[in-house]
Amino acid sequence: MISERMEKMLLNDVNTLIKPADELAVIAANHSLDHALLLMTKNKYTLVPVIDKHSKLQGLISMALIIEAIMDIEDVYFDKLADITVEEVMEKDYPSVTDDYDLEHVIRLLVNNAFVSVIDKEGVLLGIITRQEILRGTNRILHNFETVYQVEEKEKVIEKRLV
Amino acid sequence: MISERMEKMLLNDVNTLIKPADELAVIAANHSLDHALLLMTKNKYTLVPVIDKHSKLQGLISMALIIEAIMDIEDVYFDKLADITVEEVMEKDYPSVTDDYDLEHVIRLLVNNAFVSVIDKEGVLLGIITRQEILRGTNRILHNFETVYQVEEKEKVIEKRLV
Repeated sequence: MISERMEKMLLNDVNTLIKPADELAVIAANHSLDHALLLMTKNKYTLVPVIDKHSKLQGLISMALIIEAIMDIEDVYFDKLADITVEEVMEKDYPSVTDDYDLEHVIRLLVNNAFVSVIDKEGVLLGIITRQEILRGTNRILHNFETVYQVEEKEKVIEKRLV
Repeated sequence: MISERMEKMLLNDVNTLIKPADELAVIAANHSLDHALLLMTKNKYTLVPVIDKHSKLQGLISMALIIEAIMDIEDVYFDKLADITVEEVMEKDYPSVTDDYDLEHVIRLLVNNAFVSVIDKEGVLLGIITRQEILRGTNRILHNFETVYQVEEKEKVIEKRLV
């Protein structure tokens, strides 16, 4: 359990950690890999959500997955890019939560994932929570927590009460 | 200033946050982009340090930089990959610290960078500090800080003393 104090300082009274879907680069599952590669390069994203025509999250696509799909042990066959769709190579095992997410769970997921996707009950992509937002909160806690709160070793507190 | 308590819990008594250079994928500055792309794809890295023949850090190379270098507005020219060296397109403006780094400074750098490189006085790459390690520490602080320490609002502490 994360204490209310810690959670409040991590979030800094912002309403949400979620970067909304309409501010993200997303890719349609039926697009080809050359389209995906261009979009990712232009936006300097290395990993982006993949959605279907109803905006439902289907998976994640990375530059590494795209290049891997056209590569064998020795060479890369770039002429294959136009013939493969995003849904054929996307990662389908990705972390996601609904918007009533538990912060503790999200932070645990972020240790091993660049972002966590947030979806509604129908699976529509609402946005993502990134490591960047949590690191901003870490910074706040490290700097401000002991300025705002009085912190003592529990043993010392007990000793004081006994005196 | 980060308090000693917070820093200790963030680091969890580990000696170092640094992932050593000999455990990393690194790329030689004079290698060609096709070599870099293969190495990055195989290792599933999207951003890696670039070193010279003396193991001195020269820059960072990303998949996005590689593809950008062979792309114009409409198309990607993959036959150019073998003719361009990593040092021609690498990012030279990157965050780095020496191994007597200030933790506060490193965490601030990690808000906007996937990792911070650690170098010695001669510029030799010693390793990197990643967001993952800091997020592990965040997790520890959020869960354990108020178990180990007694935390009170400063105002309440003053009130108590006045009673």
